[in-house]
Amino acid sequence: MIAQDPVSLMKSMRTRIDRELEKYFEEKSQQELVPVCRSVMDHIREFTLNGGKRIRPILVILGHDLFSEPDEKVYRAAISIELTQTNLLIHDDIMDQSETRRGKPSLHVSVRNTIARNAPDSKRLSENIAIVAGDLANSYSHEALLTCGLSPVETMRANLELTRIIEMTGYGQLIDIDSAINQNFSQRDLLRLHILKTAKYTIEGPLMMGALLSGTQENILPLSFYGILLGTAFQLHDDILGLFGNESETGKSIKSDVNEGKKTLLMLKAMENSDEETREFIQASLRKGNISDADFQKLRNIVRDSGSYDHSRRMMERMIEKSKEYLAQVNGDKEIKKFLGWLAHYIIERKN
Amino acid sequence: MIAQDPVSLMKSMRTRIDRELEKYFEEKSQQELVPVCRSVMDHIREFTLNGGKRIRPILVILGHDLFSEPDEKVYRAAISIELTQTNLLIHDDIMDQSETRRGKPSLHVSVRNTIARNAPDSKRLSENIAIVAGDLANSYSHEALLTCGLSPVETMRANLELTRIIEMTGYGQLIDIDSAINQNFSQRDLLRLHILKTAKYTIEGPLMMGALLSGTQENILPLSFYGILLGTAFQLHDDILGLFGNESETGKSIKSDVNEGKKTLLMLKAMENSDEETREFIQASLRKGNISDADFQKLRNIVRDSGSYDHSRRMMERMIEKSKEYLAQVNGDKEIKKFLGWLAHYIIERKN
Repeated sequence: MIAQDPVSLMKSMRTRIDRELEKYFEEKSQQELVPVCRSVMDHIREFTLNGGKRIRPILVILGHDLFSEPDEKVYRAAISIELTQTNLLIHDDIMDQSETRRGKPSLHVSVRNTIARNAPDSKRLSENIAIVAGDLANSYSHEALLTCGLSPVETMRANLELTRIIEMTGYGQLIDIDSAINQNFSQRDLLRLHILKTAKYTIEGPLMMGALLSGTQENILPLSFYGILLGTAFQLHDDILGLFGNESETGKSIKSDVNEGKKTLLMLKAMENSDEETREFIQASLRKGNISDADFQKLRNIVRDSGSYDHSRRMMERMIEKSKEYLAQVNGDKEIKKFLGWLAHYIIERKN
Repeated sequence: MIAQDPVSLMKSMRTRIDRELEKYFEEKSQQELVPVCRSVMDHIREFTLNGGKRIRPILVILGHDLFSEPDEKVYRAAISIELTQTNLLIHDDIMDQSETRRGKPSLHVSVRNTIARNAPDSKRLSENIAIVAGDLANSYSHEALLTCGLSPVETMRANLELTRIIEMTGYGQLIDIDSAINQNFSQRDLLRLHILKTAKYTIEGPLMMGALLSGTQENILPLSFYGILLGTAFQLHDDILGLFGNESETGKSIKSDVNEGKKTLLMLKAMENSDEETREFIQASLRKGNISDADFQKLRNIVRDSGSYDHSRRMMERMIEKSKEYLAQVNGDKEIKKFLGWLAHYIIERKN
């Protein structure tokens, strides 16, 4: 790996991943397909190619390059996790009834505006088509990995990891759905949710996929711990940005986490540290769905004054420190390790 | 394979497959899981174990045993296609808004009656949980196959076949959805639908998975042709039973295909062979959703008198004949070939 600054390295990797995704869909579109299938495939393709930071496939490649010489084939394998992301986002947007994704219509909405335009009950129909589209993206994901051209043993291990990532993310999703209706949702439940839905899915799982693809005989457990800790810290930081970030930098409404009723660690800890009346105010704020400016400011003050902000911040920093200790134990390429160290730093410095 | 009569052979294979499914879920339930995840897993387990003919896993095993000595591990691999079936049925029932499956509540309905019982908007919530449950069943499917213990090369090939089966079934599903709103839906489209959604998914794909698991060097193309032809014939026979079968034998309302507006080959060919007025009567019957006894009898007469019934029947019989010719070309175990020949016969003789 050529030494270069981390930001431009990430950018150049992203460009290559996008090219690999385009190549995959180009191949797929050579299939003979009836119009409705071709149209849905085109929707999946556009949805996938429309932005996204590609952090997961980047980590697959880094996980591989830690232990083995760079190999073109790993790019093919790496896009599998991005196609899984497409699957999950399509299904998420149906579940959340989200009309947009990455600034464009979500998949079921673009289907509603095209394929299902003139159909009776076009809302239901387009959601049905989107359920199938998500399932198709899942099959694309496995196909891309299984046809990457690396050895069968390594490919199979990576595919088992991919399968487990999908399983764990599903459980995380269920805990997330449950959190809205479960009155006893605890800080412990929340951390489990972060580990499953963010740490495993976004950081640790992709790194493990890459490491398994490299066929290394090294101990990969320290890398796994690095990923879980960094991923959880990433989520805690996300929640802090969601309450205290700068709208113009995060690019989303500062109130959206609260209006969605998200039970973040900030909220759970503030409730724990508050008297009955304040606790009820927090609960009511999360239930309401449309908080006023004054109440939002009051909520922020409670989170700060109750020590909850410091608690989250400290926990995040401790996790980042710990993650670096584990990274130091990884017996792999020095340049990649340096980059992963930078990533840990980047995550708590980032503004969006 | 011990020679025994085909019906009891199928029954004993089904029993072993059910045991393998139970074993898989028993293993899974050793995982530490929060209550909501455990509950959803239990729903998936019950849904899977509640009946089903297990025709697909049976065919995986037969496809393997054609070319190789029986192997316990193939049962583990074979349940993957049944877990995919669980995935697809769960999602299908959401799409069709079906309240029941195999005589019991469909998965989203049983979730609505339990986990989501006291939630606001429990209908939406339980459908969301069922979308995730379907995705989870898909990950179980890949996991069962990837951990079957057969060689990596063979397992990987079978996994790629499984992935393609899921993809093709998705396309079939899209053509099916489209058939309801597409005014130009043709007999050609319909045959494509049958090949993708029934022949590939139910017969040919599972046979190919098994053959690939055996690692045979024999030419497996004749077996593929056998599967596609038999599977398509199976669907044509299903449609005939759906219009002319005996309710007490098929176990479903004889009018349900018509009331669902199913554009079967029987309907398409009858329209092609009829004058404008009759064509409109057929179209109206498929649109209405609640056909009277008199109109239903009239519709049956049209299908018979227009020569459409004979057309479907003849096409089905030709396919069965052709399938047997291809079967004869398969260079595999004689007892299994005899059984597959019996299966072809069984399919056109069956009453449900």
